[in-house]
Amino acid sequence: MKFGINLFPTVSPDEKSAVQHFDEALRLAELAEELGFDHVKTVEHYFTPYGGYSPDPVTFLAAAAARTSRIRLVTGAVIPAFTHPAQLAGKLAMLDNISHGRLSVGFGRAFLPDEFEAFEIPMDESRQRFTDGVEACRLLWSEEDVEWKGAFHRFGPVTLLPRPYQRPHPPILVATAITPESCVAAGRAGYGLMMVPSINKVEKVQEMLALYREAWVAAGHDPAAQDVHMSYNCYLAEEAGRAHERGRTYSEHTNRALAAAVEPWTRTKSSDYEGYGRIVERVRSSDFGKQLRDNKVLVGAPQEVADRLRLIRSWFGDITISLQVISGNMPYEESARTLRLFAEHVLPVFTP
Amino acid sequence: MKFGINLFPTVSPDEKSAVQHFDEALRLAELAEELGFDHVKTVEHYFTPYGGYSPDPVTFLAAAAARTSRIRLVTGAVIPAFTHPAQLAGKLAMLDNISHGRLSVGFGRAFLPDEFEAFEIPMDESRQRFTDGVEACRLLWSEEDVEWKGAFHRFGPVTLLPRPYQRPHPPILVATAITPESCVAAGRAGYGLMMVPSINKVEKVQEMLALYREAWVAAGHDPAAQDVHMSYNCYLAEEAGRAHERGRTYSEHTNRALAAAVEPWTRTKSSDYEGYGRIVERVRSSDFGKQLRDNKVLVGAPQEVADRLRLIRSWFGDITISLQVISGNMPYEESARTLRLFAEHVLPVFTP
Repeated sequence: MKFGINLFPTVSPDEKSAVQHFDEALRLAELAEELGFDHVKTVEHYFTPYGGYSPDPVTFLAAAAARTSRIRLVTGAVIPAFTHPAQLAGKLAMLDNISHGRLSVGFGRAFLPDEFEAFEIPMDESRQRFTDGVEACRLLWSEEDVEWKGAFHRFGPVTLLPRPYQRPHPPILVATAITPESCVAAGRAGYGLMMVPSINKVEKVQEMLALYREAWVAAGHDPAAQDVHMSYNCYLAEEAGRAHERGRTYSEHTNRALAAAVEPWTRTKSSDYEGYGRIVERVRSSDFGKQLRDNKVLVGAPQEVADRLRLIRSWFGDITISLQVISGNMPYEESARTLRLFAEHVLPVFTP
Repeated sequence: MKFGINLFPTVSPDEKSAVQHFDEALRLAELAEELGFDHVKTVEHYFTPYGGYSPDPVTFLAAAAARTSRIRLVTGAVIPAFTHPAQLAGKLAMLDNISHGRLSVGFGRAFLPDEFEAFEIPMDESRQRFTDGVEACRLLWSEEDVEWKGAFHRFGPVTLLPRPYQRPHPPILVATAITPESCVAAGRAGYGLMMVPSINKVEKVQEMLALYREAWVAAGHDPAAQDVHMSYNCYLAEEAGRAHERGRTYSEHTNRALAAAVEPWTRTKSSDYEGYGRIVERVRSSDFGKQLRDNKVLVGAPQEVADRLRLIRSWFGDITISLQVISGNMPYEESARTLRLFAEHVLPVFTP
């Protein structure tokens, strides 16, 4: 298994200033590298405490790249529906060079109605904008004199500059929340998968994973090259009671930010987002005690968290896990202690 | 006067790999800080050796911010016509926080027909897209619950996250090539000005500057807060003959990249770009010997360059100068030597 950190901010300016957030996030990226973690990841969101401090993950990851030398940098995710493919592919190629090829690009469809509304993008176009955007980036990275005649953009022939450092292109991951078809498409294309275990039943995730792996093998890709990412809220303390109490605080804080961000789903319908109407209720009824019992958070004393990961490995196999260690306005000292405890007691159990 | 560096890349992948370019550019940013320069600046361009290694100046400047602690970071320029204002204002606000308020934002209209074509933006909309884009960014930075109902974008009410570090917003500069009205508008708004001395007669620049300063004072802004930026190709060597020979090589290389990029102007007309049809001829007929005689390049032995700057100061007053020290595929060692010679022999003459 591989372990990295997901610096998903869920704070408002009242709670933590942006300058403090970025100072701490950069220190955590350096600390994660020093402690042997695999990657640092961040999101693209706008306008609300649910990720809004990170409207452009590339900007943050470029700063993190300049402060580190080994750790991988992962967008989790960038949203092709909101950015012209030549701009998206271009800045990602810059980051790939600045970091000497340490970039993996996670693409997502986005799912917050207010973001689509602000950018005047119909949600019903989301699926095709996503598929088109990933494919346009892949072409711009791997080929020259690219001509693109899609439903949303037409350009070319153009040759993207700079060329990416990794050839033919940085590893691509696609985010999928609840859609089995996306897993099949990702497996067929040889892309990695970013899944959201917190909002799905274990059996559902297993079913989606099976479809992904089946499509991967059927397409003739190397089974060892598969990459499946899952993010988990994470909080470690030496003493279990303390860990559960603080873990609950930050998880519930994060959940409140998510609940506010998905609230427009109560009055939104989209053919490209079947089943998303139920998200509001699912988020509202989310209960930390149940999440803990269902093993959907990596919260506890170190040995307890190791046990939780053994169970996760038995469910999903050798996957890549991103630890959400700042969400919920966790103070820097507690984020850093969580990482240190994890690196000392848990990492050695799961990595050679 | 203030002096910084403009890392305007004009190379193709055949001439210098992107990874080498970014390695060297980051080292030069660190060196410039160490030597006491005021700022590091870079451009937004696409697809051709004329700036194409820098499709997103924010990505590079974020890396430079993480490697430095004092030097200012300047976009020279970002193009609001190509990017949604919420995305542009958002990533710039991230950079402002990552750098602890060291950002100055130069906005430009862009002027290469192929870029507008790739982004499917009519050049005839350029002026209004620019004005709208700058104003939308200013509002998003300085106010909350912003509602925008422009000709090209409609959104809100939204509150931009993160809020910028500098309040109400980072210093704004606007780029103007040949248009007196833009100078008046910038002065009235209290924005800085980015001018292009290389393509204009001294008298024309003086006339535009006078309009800018007049409008600035008439609007009641503090005269001491004015900021006028000009970029110059720069090459220093101890021995004048050597400096002129190498300076010619890199200037002519840069000019060839520019000539190729503006070639579509031979078949382009736009009401928003009056007079630009003549650019091709002006670039083609550009002559390094004449540029040197006309004092349009900062090339020479250190004392000669100091004399050139005395003349520039006598023409334009106390302005901010950005030294183009990598353009034309200048090798890193020569860029670094140019900076060191400038810092040792020229900086002390013009800065207290």
